[in-house]
Amino acid sequence: MSILVVGSVAYDSVSTSHGSRQDALGGSATYFAVSASYFDTVEVVAVVGEDFSQDDRALLNAHGVDISGLETAPGKTFRWAGEYSRENVNNRTTLDTQLNVFAEFAPRLTPQQRRVPYLFLANIAPELQLQVLGQMEQRPRLVAADTMNFWIEGNREALAEVVKSVDVLLMDEGEVRQFVEPYVKNLNVVKAARYILEMGPRLVIVKRGDHGVIQFMQDSVFAASAYPLEDVVDPTGAGDSFAGGLMGYLAATGDTSAEGFRNATVLGSVMGSFAVESFSLDRIKSLAPSEISERFRAFVELSRFNGLSESETLPWRVGVAPG
Amino acid sequence: MSILVVGSVAYDSVSTSHGSRQDALGGSATYFAVSASYFDTVEVVAVVGEDFSQDDRALLNAHGVDISGLETAPGKTFRWAGEYSRENVNNRTTLDTQLNVFAEFAPRLTPQQRRVPYLFLANIAPELQLQVLGQMEQRPRLVAADTMNFWIEGNREALAEVVKSVDVLLMDEGEVRQFVEPYVKNLNVVKAARYILEMGPRLVIVKRGDHGVIQFMQDSVFAASAYPLEDVVDPTGAGDSFAGGLMGYLAATGDTSAEGFRNATVLGSVMGSFAVESFSLDRIKSLAPSEISERFRAFVELSRFNGLSESETLPWRVGVAPG
Repeated sequence: MSILVVGSVAYDSVSTSHGSRQDALGGSATYFAVSASYFDTVEVVAVVGEDFSQDDRALLNAHGVDISGLETAPGKTFRWAGEYSRENVNNRTTLDTQLNVFAEFAPRLTPQQRRVPYLFLANIAPELQLQVLGQMEQRPRLVAADTMNFWIEGNREALAEVVKSVDVLLMDEGEVRQFVEPYVKNLNVVKAARYILEMGPRLVIVKRGDHGVIQFMQDSVFAASAYPLEDVVDPTGAGDSFAGGLMGYLAATGDTSAEGFRNATVLGSVMGSFAVESFSLDRIKSLAPSEISERFRAFVELSRFNGLSESETLPWRVGVAPG
Repeated sequence: MSILVVGSVAYDSVSTSHGSRQDALGGSATYFAVSASYFDTVEVVAVVGEDFSQDDRALLNAHGVDISGLETAPGKTFRWAGEYSRENVNNRTTLDTQLNVFAEFAPRLTPQQRRVPYLFLANIAPELQLQVLGQMEQRPRLVAADTMNFWIEGNREALAEVVKSVDVLLMDEGEVRQFVEPYVKNLNVVKAARYILEMGPRLVIVKRGDHGVIQFMQDSVFAASAYPLEDVVDPTGAGDSFAGGLMGYLAATGDTSAEGFRNATVLGSVMGSFAVESFSLDRIKSLAPSEISERFRAFVELSRFNGLSESETLPWRVGVAPG
């Protein structure tokens, strides 16, 4: 089944403790599409400027990503510059944002795209996310959306409409609390995630940077640790690569049960772990299937413990009856 | 098999987003002993002042904790006051520390205690931890130690000796990097934990607050998420209660294999999750075995996913050969 992503394609300038890179291929739709392309067919709706390189088009083509919906507009491609803290890779500072052609982005879906079964609304203005949803001829089988603090601050009402309309919502820990704060004060992240669940989504995935993710459904909670990498080279694109693995699994298997979501979240974590091992898409663009399977099994090993069989009990002291 | 803990018994004054409590029972040895007491016999070596209450002695007695090594010295019991951030329960500020009788604490073990098989060196000066180790008649079957940033800053050499001498080391993420920094610059937490493993411990447990723990051995890594509690009332004692569950499991089962350590870490996480549900020891002092078993099974459910059987493969697109 096909996946459609609507988001950004960008050139990023990034500085981390492992060095820096200027004007390297990035953007939420790019990371998502390349990640998901290992599992199912992906179409991109986005906009680039006249400076977008043939090499970068070729990269997406090589992954079988359908870029017929990648509009080329007069002007320059969206540019973002940022710096990650040496002390904590989860902290980043935006140094520069040049929207360029992205400022006028108005996604227009083809008749075929309006019938896509799996839709990912990457981190763009919630008004645009709603426009995309409004263009769908029928409700997709599954809609997932990402967002960021910028939209929570400035476009809360539109974002609330998005939240009510999607099946899967991705937010980081701080964003979950920030989003819920005006409705109910001082909720911790667990209560805040449950509050969001009540608004509509079947699944709320809370991103915790290099600590992994925790996913909330009405009657189950699943925590997936991040893979303990010795070198996190560049965290850019981790969340979108995660979403690509997640949606790729769901679309390829069609399993949107609670069990399917758990496996999908682990495959998302696998793809996120590859994304951060290099600058730009250097690592994630050239994965062998065996590498992905191997890391998936490493995730199994990472969280595995024997637990107790039905007949076993925990060790208890004899005769102690705590009061 | 018996467990010996050497650490502090204190009266804590704590302020959190859920309220505050004055002069409530606390201390590393207290939380550890009550937590471990559900699984095996525990002896405490610590010091209190003349103000230590009969009720608090009775609490330890009711849990079968041997407090014959709890010395009463002239003066007042150790007091600590702190405040936890409303935004992030992992951030705490110490408002006041009154060492009182703890300033002169010089642990003296009885002949019987010098032969204890399981020893926990709670967070005290590393010189005292070494003194305790020096008093052991024979090397215990398992020695675990905790510490804090204060000792890393001021008592690094003694602490390095402790690290070289123990089987299990507990540190939080920041402490792991802080401890390793003078030896090798700019290691991330994974590399820093592996550096510490090379110094001697079989197991390094990195505490990540409400995100859980990750444990490193030479040839395996295990991550255990924290239980997603809707109300973290007071994080004080979480680490020591974790250590109590960990050591309790190991002592009661005698299983110090890699598999045993994984189960022990989950039981530690179970006990830590109870400790933070109330101020002081209110919750952890009155647990029914069924509550502990039930939460252990909730931890199983929290991290469970189907994964892939040997014959299954991840979903792959047909005919895509990414370049």
